[in-house]
Amino acid sequence: MKKNSVEQCSAQIAKHIHRTPVLSSTSINTLVNAKVFLKCENFQRAGAYKIRGATHAILQLSDEEKAKGVVTHSSGNFAQALSLAAKSVGIKAYIVMPENAPRVKRTAVAGYDGEVIECESTIEARERTAAQIQQDTGATFVHPSNNTNVIIGQGTAAYELLTDHPDLEVIVCPVGGGGLIAGTCLAVQELNPNCTVIGAEPFEVDDAYRSLQSGHIETNSSTNTIADGLRTHLGDKNFPIIKQHVSEIIRVTEDEIVSAMRLVWERMKIIIEPSSAVAVAAVLNNTEQFKDQRVGIVISGGNVDLSQLPF
Amino acid sequence: MKKNSVEQCSAQIAKHIHRTPVLSSTSINTLVNAKVFLKCENFQRAGAYKIRGATHAILQLSDEEKAKGVVTHSSGNFAQALSLAAKSVGIKAYIVMPENAPRVKRTAVAGYDGEVIECESTIEARERTAAQIQQDTGATFVHPSNNTNVIIGQGTAAYELLTDHPDLEVIVCPVGGGGLIAGTCLAVQELNPNCTVIGAEPFEVDDAYRSLQSGHIETNSSTNTIADGLRTHLGDKNFPIIKQHVSEIIRVTEDEIVSAMRLVWERMKIIIEPSSAVAVAAVLNNTEQFKDQRVGIVISGGNVDLSQLPF
Repeated sequence: MKKNSVEQCSAQIAKHIHRTPVLSSTSINTLVNAKVFLKCENFQRAGAYKIRGATHAILQLSDEEKAKGVVTHSSGNFAQALSLAAKSVGIKAYIVMPENAPRVKRTAVAGYDGEVIECESTIEARERTAAQIQQDTGATFVHPSNNTNVIIGQGTAAYELLTDHPDLEVIVCPVGGGGLIAGTCLAVQELNPNCTVIGAEPFEVDDAYRSLQSGHIETNSSTNTIADGLRTHLGDKNFPIIKQHVSEIIRVTEDEIVSAMRLVWERMKIIIEPSSAVAVAAVLNNTEQFKDQRVGIVISGGNVDLSQLPF
Repeated sequence: MKKNSVEQCSAQIAKHIHRTPVLSSTSINTLVNAKVFLKCENFQRAGAYKIRGATHAILQLSDEEKAKGVVTHSSGNFAQALSLAAKSVGIKAYIVMPENAPRVKRTAVAGYDGEVIECESTIEARERTAAQIQQDTGATFVHPSNNTNVIIGQGTAAYELLTDHPDLEVIVCPVGGGGLIAGTCLAVQELNPNCTVIGAEPFEVDDAYRSLQSGHIETNSSTNTIADGLRTHLGDKNFPIIKQHVSEIIRVTEDEIVSAMRLVWERMKIIIEPSSAVAVAAVLNNTEQFKDQRVGIVISGGNVDLSQLPF
């Protein structure tokens, strides 16, 4: 099947998602000495950009496939996103979650009519359980980040950002599984190929940084970061795009992440999650590099457990 | 001097303030079974609506008065607002603050070039110190809420809300010193006199509720509420307006305030302060009353100490 452009995808998913606002802050512009534009996917449905790719992947299914539903394994934002996207399109979603996943996340998935299937808390158990459901139900597996239609869908956030601000010189994205930044690269290629794409990653899980150095997909031996959305590694569908178009990965410390998160909460009065603060921290801590530029930042989400705040 | 209408005031102060957005939430609409519109003054300059009235009061001064500056006593949002408004207009602000005021608030005032004058932490000491500064410098005293030009200025938040949503049936405001709700009454009279104005107050400081019952300005013997902006009582400039136009004061418990604040943070991803959550709580806990209506809520501000959260 011919792949959609990000533009075509954007039109297809429009009625299932919010067009999120782009916000600026005088304080942050002053601190960076630049014009910084935050694409606020924290205001997206289900609190994160993930519903874009989930919806796009579902809309590409045939009627026969739709009738059998979709399945994924995730303990994070993608579990909620796929459930809500499936509900929005009117199909069934099976979500494999580790048995130790926070109850609040299971409740959120169930609230969007997703069917939660528990499994042991290992990646092998998650994959095995998802494969079993695929076999039993005929549901289509949708990977949270390493799926071409998901990647194109995630690109619509940057697509909208560039539509609102066509003259951005650089866009900074957090990098976890690689879906968001690969989609951002595709959007930039379509709308403004002169715009640079920079990734942002915690030092504690700098697999993408190391992958760009080595030329191979690297993994993390530990995932000791507050940025819970960025603990995964790249995949074979998104790494080639990232390798070709991402100019650099900036790494930040845990303290820098928490400070950036606090700064945005205090100055802008919006709630962003630690994974999004990683991208803000990359800009705040490299002001010489971004000076006098027009900088876009994709704020990936706002799902935070308010009883577990780092300040 | 002839008083400005809220409309005239709105035009006068426009270049010194932000036009804040009006946000809605599907979750909150569903919970209340109504259409709820939040006027987001948490995104206002200095993080609260107070700069509206402060700016308007300053702009009414003669050049001679402007040259001598303004003075107020406040440990809260009005201290920052008057400092920033004065800076914005290019005049001097003297801010009397109790010696036990949080350092962060003094720093904020100083950041807007306001001159902080410390005094003992009693209302008598604050008033005496402010009077002394008036005498020494010739500065004009601007009361945070009991000043006609301040009241008209605060009304511009509801004025903008009603301009964006002319068919609101009711507007709910938190009530502290009475400036915001009295200004809201004036705006409603100008734009849509059929719209009802309801106040919201913590049970712990229900002076406005009791004042409407007795017909006199009542005070609070204790101020044990998380809604730190609402601990003051009404004044002789705003009470007559409130008495004439406010249909009801709804009181809420401390638990209801914290729950409403958390709900807005979690579902809308915006930071609102406890005083604003009082108005949200009044709506959330009286859904029968607001059912099927178009309800405006003035979100007064977003200034919260993130290291002192109630959850």
